[in-house]
Parts: sequence; C-alpha cells; structure tokens
Amino acid sequence: MKNTIVALLLAGGNSSRLWPLEDKYTLDFLGKPLAYYSIRQLERFGIYDVVIVVNEKNFPIFERLKSDFSKIRMVFVKQTDSRGMAGAVVSAEAEIAGKPVLIISPSDVYEDDIFIHFDNLRSKHPDGIIAGITKDTYFPGGYLTVSSGRVTTLTEKPDPKNLPSNIVSFVFHYFNNASTLIEEIETLKGTKENLYERAIDTLIRNGSEFKYLHYKSFWGYLKYPWDCLSLSSYFLSRNTGKIGGNVKIAKGVTLSGKIQIEDGVTILEGAKIVGPTYIGRGTLIGNNTVIRESMIGSRCVVGFATEIVRSSIGNDCWFHSNYIGDSILSHNIGLGAGAVVANFKLNETTVSSTLSGKKVDTGRLKLGAAIGENVRIGIHASLMPGVKIGKNSHIGSAVLIDRDIGENVYCAHLPSTFVEKKVTDKKPVRLKDIHAVHFS
Amino acid sequence: MKNTIVALLLAGGNSSRLWPLEDKYTLDFLGKPLAYYSIRQLERFGIYDVVIVVNEKNFPIFERLKSDFSKIRMVFVKQTDSRGMAGAVVSAEAEIAGKPVLIISPSDVYEDDIFIHFDNLRSKHPDGIIAGITKDTYFPGGYLTVSSGRVTTLTEKPDPKNLPSNIVSFVFHYFNNASTLIEEIETLKGTKENLYERAIDTLIRNGSEFKYLHYKSFWGYLKYPWDCLSLSSYFLSRNTGKIGGNVKIAKGVTLSGKIQIEDGVTILEGAKIVGPTYIGRGTLIGNNTVIRESMIGSRCVVGFATEIVRSSIGNDCWFHSNYIGDSILSHNIGLGAGAVVANFKLNETTVSSTLSGKKVDTGRLKLGAAIGENVRIGIHASLMPGVKIGKNSHIGSAVLIDRDIGENVYCAHLPSTFVEKKVTDKKPVRLKDIHAVHFS
Amino acid sequence: MKNTIVALLLAGGNSSRLWPLEDKYTLDFLGKPLAYYSIRQLERFGIYDVVIVVNEKNFPIFERLKSDFSKIRMVFVKQTDSRGMAGAVVSAEAEIAGKPVLIISPSDVYEDDIFIHFDNLRSKHPDGIIAGITKDTYFPGGYLTVSSGRVTTLTEKPDPKNLPSNIVSFVFHYFNNASTLIEEIETLKGTKENLYERAIDTLIRNGSEFKYLHYKSFWGYLKYPWDCLSLSSYFLSRNTGKIGGNVKIAKGVTLSGKIQIEDGVTILEGAKIVGPTYIGRGTLIGNNTVIRESMIGSRCVVGFATEIVRSSIGNDCWFHSNYIGDSILSHNIGLGAGAVVANFKLNETTVSSTLSGKKVDTGRLKLGAAIGENVRIGIHASLMPGVKIGKNSHIGSAVLIDRDIGENVYCAHLPSTFVEKKVTDKKPVRLKDIHAVHFS
Repeated sequence: MKNTIVALLLAGGNSSRLWPLEDKYTLDFLGKPLAYYSIRQLERFGIYDVVIVVNEKNFPIFERLKSDFSKIRMVFVKQTDSRGMAGAVVSAEAEIAGKPVLIISPSDVYEDDIFIHFDNLRSKHPDGIIAGITKDTYFPGGYLTVSSGRVTTLTEKPDPKNLPSNIVSFVFHYFNNASTLIEEIETLKGTKENLYERAIDTLIRNGSEFKYLHYKSFWGYLKYPWDCLSLSSYFLSRNTGKIGGNVKIAKGVTLSGKIQIEDGVTILEGAKIVGPTYIGRGTLIGNNTVIRESMIGSRCVVGFATEIVRSSIGNDCWFHSNYIGDSILSHNIGLGAGAVVANFKLNETTVSSTLSGKKVDTGRLKLGAAIGENVRIGIHASLMPGVKIGKNSHIGSAVLIDRDIGENVYCAHLPSTFVEKKVTDKKPVRLKDIHAVHFS
Repeated sequence: MKNTIVALLLAGGNSSRLWPLEDKYTLDFLGKPLAYYSIRQLERFGIYDVVIVVNEKNFPIFERLKSDFSKIRMVFVKQTDSRGMAGAVVSAEAEIAGKPVLIISPSDVYEDDIFIHFDNLRSKHPDGIIAGITKDTYFPGGYLTVSSGRVTTLTEKPDPKNLPSNIVSFVFHYFNNASTLIEEIETLKGTKENLYERAIDTLIRNGSEFKYLHYKSFWGYLKYPWDCLSLSSYFLSRNTGKIGGNVKIAKGVTLSGKIQIEDGVTILEGAKIVGPTYIGRGTLIGNNTVIRESMIGSRCVVGFATEIVRSSIGNDCWFHSNYIGDSILSHNIGLGAGAVVANFKLNETTVSSTLSGKKVDTGRLKLGAAIGENVRIGIHASLMPGVKIGKNSHIGSAVLIDRDIGENVYCAHLPSTFVEKKVTDKKPVRLKDIHAVHFS
Repeated sequence: MKNTIVALLLAGGNSSRLWPLEDKYTLDFLGKPLAYYSIRQLERFGIYDVVIVVNEKNFPIFERLKSDFSKIRMVFVKQTDSRGMAGAVVSAEAEIAGKPVLIISPSDVYEDDIFIHFDNLRSKHPDGIIAGITKDTYFPGGYLTVSSGRVTTLTEKPDPKNLPSNIVSFVFHYFNNASTLIEEIETLKGTKENLYERAIDTLIRNGSEFKYLHYKSFWGYLKYPWDCLSLSSYFLSRNTGKIGGNVKIAKGVTLSGKIQIEDGVTILEGAKIVGPTYIGRGTLIGNNTVIRESMIGSRCVVGFATEIVRSSIGNDCWFHSNYIGDSILSHNIGLGAGAVVANFKLNETTVSSTLSGKKVDTGRLKLGAAIGENVRIGIHASLMPGVKIGKNSHIGSAVLIDRDIGENVYCAHLPSTFVEKKVTDKKPVRLKDIHAVHFS
C-alpha cells in the first residue's frame, strides 16, 4: 500500500524573502542541498515515487541529486501554471492524477516521527491528512481549527489580532486521490491568491475527512535569511563527527566537540575548532583561527587570525583576519584583512533588518550580516548587525555599512577624507632607541 | 602605648581629578579596594582603632571591608562639615577628641618602613609628626621646611617658581592630641581653602614641636587617571604568584613571570601571559591572546586575539580582538572586534591629556585611554592616546576618538560616508581560480 | 691573463624611479647590500681589481664592504663628469686607461654561467663582448642586433612599436682596451643622452669586433620599487637555511621550508614561519605571527598577531597586529596596531601605481605598498594596493591612503567625523548578564 504514494515536492517558488540568498530549496547544509534531506527522509519511509516541481535556477541542482538516490524514481516538472502552489500542483497533474499524494515543501525540516504519525493516521483511510504545530506567537502562515482529530477549517494568513486557533499548518498535506484536489482548484472562482489553501478548505467544508496530524517536534523553515541560522544549528547538532580522507591536521590544533570534516581539509597550527561544526571538502583552516558552531562550505580559505562564530558560510569563500558573527554568507565571497561583521548592538537590543523598505525586529540579540554570492569586501570594512548585501557587490576598504546594499553595487569611501600637513617638528628617531622591547 | 593611637582615614573626598574613574579610595588593586592595603598596614603595626571618614558612594564598599579585618575596630563617619580635610577632621571629633591621632589618606601607598620611622620619632613624645619626601620636580601639593629634624613651615601649593624647599608633604600626620588640631581649625579665620594645612602651619609657627619624618621609599598616590598605572605596577610587582582553585589552563598556554590567578579562571589554548600580571576571579582568557604586565578584574572575558599591555582593567569587561595599551578601564566595559586603544604618538612625544579644558603633558611616552564604567565601544573604533571617556557612553563603530567624551554620550559616525556606484566592468570570478593558496 | 681585467662597477646613478626607496646598489638582500653579490661573483671568477663609481650617499656603505673582501683591490671613484654612464666611465679613466675592462651595474643580478660564457668568448680575443637576453615583451632599455655571433648594432630605448630585435642588452660590457671606449665617448658630438651606448654602437659600426654573449638564465634588475619583490624572491630561494648563534625559538613555533635566521633572533610562542624566508640579526618575531616567503631586516619587532607575506622589510621596523602583503618597506618604519597594507584589488585586476604623475599597470595581481624610511603609520590605517609613501611621513590613525604620499607629510583624518548624541534609551546592563559565554 504505502509505496504507491507519490510525494509531490513543491520547489518552484522564488524565495524572494530570502534575499540576498537565493532558492531556499537548494541551500547547502552539511554539504548537501536542503531538499536532499527531504528526499532521504521519504526514502527512509518507503516513499520512492518523488515528483519535484522545480524552477529554472534549481533544476540543475536537483538533477545532480538523482545520483544520490538509487531507489527513488525522481520526476521533474517545470511549473507551467503561474498560480502559486495551486499552479504547481496542476503542473504536476500528469504524474499524480488518481494517485494518493503527499505534498511537501522541501525547504521544511521535521523529525522522522511525523512519518510515524502519518502512517498511523493513513491506516484509517481518511480523505486526507493535514499536519499542524502549535505556536504561541503569531506566524505568517495558515491556521487550522480542529475537532475530534479532524481538521475543520484551514485559513491562510488570518488577521494576527483574530487568530482562529494556535495551530499553524505547514505543507505536509496528504490527499487520498490527488485528482480531488486538482478538480477543486479548477472549480474555484476568484483570485489565484491562496488558491491552494482555499481549495483544501473548501474540500473540508464540503465534508471530506481530513485527519489532523498533531506534530510536536522540531520544525525548521526558511522565510528570512536569518532562519538559515536556526536551521544551520539544527543540522550542526546532527553532524556525523566523521573525519574524511586526506585530512591534514597540524600539531597544536585543538578540536573540541562534534566536528564533521570532509575529504581534503587542511587545518594549520594554532587553529581551534569548537563543535558542533562542519568543514566542507578541500577547505583550508589557517593559522591561529577560531571556528565555533559554524558550517563552512567547500574550498574555502579561512585565513590567518580569523574568527567565525555561529555562522553559515557557502563554498569558495576567503577570509583573512576577520571576525564573522551570527552571519549567513553565500558562495564565492572574499573579505579583506581586518574586515569585521558585527553581530551585537552597542545598546544591547535585538537586531533589526530591513524588509520591503521597513525595519523589522528579527528578535535576535545577536545577528550579523546576510551576504549574496560573489561579493567582495575590502580591508577594515565594518558591517553593522542585520545588514544585507546583494550579489556581485563590492564593499570598499574601511567603509562602514549600516544599511542594505543592492546587487552589483560598488560602495566606495568618499575621496579626500584626510588632509596633508608638513611634518616639521621632528627629526626621525630610530624606533629601537625609543622603545624598550617588552615582548618576552 | 602604641595601640591607643586612633588612625583617622580621610576618604570623604570626591576624586574629581580622577574622572572618568570614580573614588580613588576604593579602586581595586589585586582584587581589593585600595584602602584595604592602608588598613592592613595599620593592623600590621598594631593600630587597631580606625576611624574612616567616608562619602555616600564608597560607604558600602568600606562596610564590606569590615569582614576582612577581625582585629580592627572600624568606625565610619560621614563628613557633615564641607570644609575639605579640615571639615573631615572636625566631622570625626567625637571619635578622636583628646586622643593621639594619625591622619592618613587611604589613597596613598607607602612602604612599611614609614611606620618604623614613625615609632622611633614617637618615642620622643613630640607634639606631632609630619612626613615628607624629596621631589626634584614640581608636585602640586604641600611643601615643608625643616630644621634640625623639626618642621618649621608647611606651605600648601606654593608658587612653582618659588618653592620653599624640595620636600613634599603627604598626608601622614600625627598629633599627640587631636583636640589641639581641631581647636586650631576652629580658631582660624578666612576662607576654608587649605584650612587643614594652615592650621598645622599655625601650630608649628606658634611653637608646637612637629618632628619631620623623612621618607625615602615608594610613595604611590592617585591624582590623575594615569597615576593608576604607576600604582598598578607597584601592586603587580608584589602579587602573590598563587594559582587559585578551579583554574583551568589549556594545553599550549604560556605563563611567564609572576602571575596571580584567582579562583575559577579559565585560560584557553594559545594564550600567553607575561608577569607580573593579576587575573581576577572567574575571568576567561580566550584563545591566542597576550596579556603583559596588567591587572585584569573579575568575570572578564578577554576574547580571541586580544592583546592587553601594561593596563589596569576593572571587573566584567569584555574584549574581542582588541589592542589595549597602557590604559585604565573601569568596570563593565565592552569593546567590539578590532577596536584599538592606541598608546603611542606618531611623532613620539609624550602624551597629553585634557584637564579642565586644558591640554597638559602627562609626561608619559606611552599612555592609552581612561574609560569610565558601562562604556560600550564599537568594532574598529580607534581611541587616541590620552583620551578619556565618561561612564555609560557609547563609541560607534569605526569612530576615531581624538578628544575626551562626556558621560551618557553616543558618538556616531556621520551618515553617508560612502557613495554607491554600479559595478560594470567585471564578471564574477571564482576566488579559487584567481588565488594560488600560499598558506602552508 | 684573466686576473688583469679590471671590473668597473657603475654605482653613481640616482635611482629616482625607485622612489620612495633609495639607491638601488645598496638595498639589502639577505642582510647584505645588493652590490655585495656582484663583487663576490667577480671574486669567484678571479677578477680582483674592482673600481667602483659611487655617489655621496652610497660611498660609506661601499667602504664598509671592503672588510668583506680580503682578496679584492677595491678603488672608489666619485663621479665628477655628469654625462651619465659615459661620464662615470670617464671619471674612472685614471684607473682603467689601457686595460681590459668589464663594465657592470651592481644593481643587476645574473647567474654564474654568464662568466663561463664570458671566459669562452674572451679566449677568442675580440675587441669587446656585449651581453644580451631575449625578451618577448617590451623592456625600456637597449636592444641589440646580432649576426654570426657578432653584435651589429646597439640601439638605446628604440621605439617600442619598431624594435630592432628581441634581444635586450644589459650592462655586462667588456672592452679589450678601455681607452678605445673613452676616446670614442670624447669624440662623439651631440647631446649627452645615451652617450655611452652611442659610443659603443659607433665602435661596432666602425668595425670593432664585439662578440655577442647570449645569456639565458635569471636576470634581476631594479627599476621600479616592485622589482625588489622579484629580486627578493630570487635571493630568498638561495638563502642558506642556517640558524645563527644565540637564537631563541620558543615552544610551539612552526618553521617550515628553508629559513635563514641570523644571530640573536628571538621567536615567540605560536609564530609560524614559512620559507623561503630570511630573518635578520637581533629581530624579534612575536607571539602568534605568520611570516611567509619574506625578507625581514635586522633589529625589527614583528609584534603580536602580525602577518607578513611575500614582502621585503628593512631594518628597525616595528609591527603590531598588522597585515603586510607583497610590499617593500625601507628602514625604521613603525606601524600601529591593526594597520593593513592591502595587496589585492576588489575587482581582481592587476595593480597600478603612479609614476611621474601617470597611473601605470605594474602587471602584478598582488602588490602592496612601497614605503620610505622613517615612516610612521597609525592604528587602523589602510594602505591601498600600489601606493607609495615618501620618507619621514606620518599616516594618521584610521586614514585610508589611496594615492601616493610625498616626503615629510603628515596625513591626518579630518576632524569632526562623528556626532555626539545623548544616550537616553538604556540603563547599563552588566555584560555578563546578557552574554552566555560560548568560549570553550
């Protein structure tokens, strides 16, 4: 029975709230795109038919994933219907029509126990299953009402002042027959806004039996760049602690806690790595560096005297006597000597960030920057907590960045920030004649 | 005989010249308020009756000191008479009237041999004893003239161009009967300016026999913030060199010279500590740090790659990749990554500081900053030699501080210090394709 | 026969293109003035008569060299004739008239095989010998044409668009009888421009037989400051790898590759030195420093947490938490904590430098600064790639230097770069109450 289910992964969305990061479905965690973990989880529970709605950008990454899953029959669908999630489902009609379907978003992360619940509920042959989690603070998503184990309503983005319940729905939606959903989508009139959720709500109200899956464990998701940090912590806590092949660890290196180190990593003298930490393939950790509770991508160079703390770093990034705290960096980013990414405000309040032109409180006491791919940052640059920098931009030397910077922008220090005077009052003195050498 | 003397400690003054530091009597040295050492010295020489004139601010600290001295009968007097030192003595009249009294300032530090001299002179039953020390350069205090072992005049703050002698008086003044002094104070007419010293001078001129105590060893005092550094050096040279309980010292830590480390200190890999140095209770010395000839308070975090040299640091201070040279920091001060406190001028002249609006030469070739409590300093901030920062102030990131900053002030970088241009001339290149990795 | 040759070393020129460095003939490499290596090479090939045309500045340095060469008869000539190289030759007439003479520039470096070629050619008794090397790109010097092993023309600085050949001549010129050259110089009319080369060219065209010495190995020269880096690499690759007397190397120091360390050097804990590297006499390498592929002069202090990479550093220089990349520093230069000499552009193009007011491409992807003697650089100063700083100048704290700075100049940050506001929104919080200590 179970293995006749088709999993439909909705990965065609555009992740715009994640800017300057791109495509939440394929961001790397522990060296694998996030969706990898969703598919591996399906495989663990015997769901081998996987249909993935992709977009132009992430399609090649998904395709490369195929080789990781020998048991899975992976089918890719490009979203041809622009009606959001509803359109994604309709685009996949040929692959799912008439079949039992489990719809999930591969940017969501949950523990395996959700599948144990799921199997239990499914053994009762309902028309569908909808998962939810209780949240004590407002979450910008769908809310469920529930009665006697049945979902009674699904309301997408209700008024925060008038919530129908404290149960938030996330995309773990099972339909005994996918065609029922598709027909309801096509029947509904009105705007395409929330069409997918409205179709489910209509099915429920018209009498279909949707069991409520009450989920209580970790739920990870990616809405804003800083959500990467929570997800990163989650994955770090589950790193394998394995040291790969051809890893060179110099004398005088301190490793403490659980640290996963991939093939070909080199760690030089005086480095200290505090777990949970992940170091990607071929990365070089330089002399006298400290890395704490962070994910470092592949082929990075963490140069001399750099400290990286609670951060998530992409591939091909270069550091050099930097401090990076609580930050999210994409791929191929270079920082000049002494550049600092600050993560804590002088007045010790939570860090704000700008979204659609408005300052919003991230709720985080410590938060650094989010930086898009190919960015270059000059020596002595100072990035203030919560700023975001768009891809391909250059931050000039000694510039203080206290606001978001767009893509393809060069931020240069204003010229003539100093004046020249004549040195008149002094004969050169030999430094050695004036200093006693206290070093010892 | 001896133990009938009452010691009168004058600790009610306001220490305004010490700004931004507060209350010189209770500044910590080797983890104890300065006055602790005065009282301990009295105890060593059998003077158990101690009357302390306190102020609102330091009274609680003095009261806590009581538990350190089981033999001492400690009495506190709040100064009710505003006439400076004279007023302090008069405020204590009920405790000292009719008794032999030794008046000292518990912000002065001298070696034990002063008490051996004192006992000798006192055995000759003079009316009083006045200590002095020879100074080859002008000192802004009282000057003595002396003849055949007797003090012949005491002149407070004489014209620097017309000094009566090279003998400077400091507050180590004995009176066989305290009431004689109090009566003279009450008799004198005129301003309250230097009333205490004028009373003594009058007693002398009227025939009282005041023996001269010629002191030749170390005399430490606190007038200006930078005097803390000399006093700090003095105490450091006398640290016990003991390592407390529950101290964790990681592998690869270098300790060199005499270092006193209090209970619960943690020192991480790659740290180097050069004595004489003192590390207070519960402090954490981070990876790859250097501390040389400094006093560090309790519960501090000296974070990664920080260097602290010849400085005096209060409790609860946090550092992070900083350089701090020849500086005095009060309690609960935080420095962002890369902030630097400079201690040496480019033109290699002695450092000046501003006092009452005027630049004065401190005579020090190396001098950093003096920083009041609760100050926060942003990343990449630069503090120029000799500056002072008032309590509760915030120094913004990358700000260059070249003048004194008051209390409760936020110094922010001017906005718009950079311009944005379009990056047009370049396709992103993978850093790994352009750099050869030279690290090895 | 051979030892009757006189070597004439032309060291009277003014090295103006090397600014802010001075006198290319006596710049130190591996602790010896460059000319030392020329004279040592002559000695190895049995040329013991050495006439050196010196200038006011370098004469004392040459004179001190005498004691290094017991076999050499060294004669110094001050250039009295202002006609460039021709004038230098004429000034030495008394020492070389009638003798076979080998004219060389002691700022040129070549391998010993040039002398093996030379001996071969000389055994055929030609009128002279002219060395050349093939260059595929334009070089601003003299060009040769050659036929059947004979030089047929010598053209100084031909039009780059119309080169006579790809054979560049360098100053390794032999004349069987020096007087022939001197007479031709005196005979030629016209400007003194290129008089030396025109005299040789005329001799050739008039029938003298000048053999062509086709040299194929390393040729090092000093035209621009950055040429020091190539020459430095060459000498570093030939360092002896010897450790001198009274060298102290602390525990936890890593030495890797071939490193020559002179007498009296101290290397503190946590330092890493990667060869080929040279450390001069009495220099102190501080804690947690990295030095890679560099020459460090005598009596330097490379302070805590400094990184010096592929650079050439003079004597008596002081560093302190600095990064110095691909740079050339003269003597007695001090850098404040955190000052950075950048060596790589954000847009990853080759570095330009200003020569006679014009930006020229140095062809180097990585190039830092060239700094004249006695310069002082403040904390947090940022030097952009390719800048030059004249001797005795001071760079103020936190100043960004993006253009060349003259001699005896003080570059100061503009005053009032920050504003003061009142801190009103916050009560001081104890840092320990807000931070969890993650350090471990």
